[in-house]
Amino acid sequence: MQRDWQQMLQATIPLSAAMQVGIVYGADGRVELTAPLAPNVNDKGTGFGGSLATLATLAGWVEVRRQLDGIAPDVQADIVIQRGETSYLHPVTAAFSAQVDALDADELGRFAKLFIRRGVARMPVAVQVLCGGVKCAEFRGEYVASRLV
Amino acid sequence: MQRDWQQMLQATIPLSAAMQVGIVYGADGRVELTAPLAPNVNDKGTGFGGSLATLATLAGWVEVRRQLDGIAPDVQADIVIQRGETSYLHPVTAAFSAQVDALDADELGRFAKLFIRRGVARMPVAVQVLCGGVKCAEFRGEYVASRLV
Repeated sequence: MQRDWQQMLQATIPLSAAMQVGIVYGADGRVELTAPLAPNVNDKGTGFGGSLATLATLAGWVEVRRQLDGIAPDVQADIVIQRGETSYLHPVTAAFSAQVDALDADELGRFAKLFIRRGVARMPVAVQVLCGGVKCAEFRGEYVASRLV
Repeated sequence: MQRDWQQMLQATIPLSAAMQVGIVYGADGRVELTAPLAPNVNDKGTGFGGSLATLATLAGWVEVRRQLDGIAPDVQADIVIQRGETSYLHPVTAAFSAQVDALDADELGRFAKLFIRRGVARMPVAVQVLCGGVKCAEFRGEYVASRLV
């Protein structure tokens, strides 16, 4: 199951439309989120920190949703972010993207087991924000998936 | 010196216009940033985490800029965020606001001294995201002010 993430995000989260979030589908099934600079610029003409953090937040959310689609495809669930931390390393000077690091297999196994058994599970996700091949920000998020009954 | 923060933010940071960020001026000089729910909603109909983090990021930035206006009113400086961390406590179900905690006097003294002496100084800021009197998120940011030569 591969969703139309761009349509899904832009239809449900207006800020993702304002940011002009796009999707690149990777060969391994993971997706990369992209954004142009213009709607995401700051007072210095570089990428606004709030936009970088938001793109990373969305990328982590999409990855947890994507994993959950594999673990429990017929189960309705909400995924919410519980904590997010962004470190800003370099200014973003052009279009940028958010790429999720491959999830840790043990963490993922634990997440799947807990979600199936209890209907609630937490997943940590690491995301890199890249611009022109340079890592401009690092993000770590914790998401909680809850089965809807 | 009290700036027109709303005009400043919306003119230089398009995302703040998309979020419809507003300003409430407090009696003590501090400013509160506000945002309506509609442009900041998520797939669950509540406040989008990226919007909450972004409003808090802006509130911290405004506070550091405001302090710098007092410390060195005639000096041109850039303020950038270096790190931001958001903990999400409760869903936001209506218009929300970001309020900066009063800065620690010792931290502020150190910030002023370093900025005047070296032209570069870091300031930690804590921000609360409130909705209907309930604290829905906590944000901690570190900002760096650099004199422009």
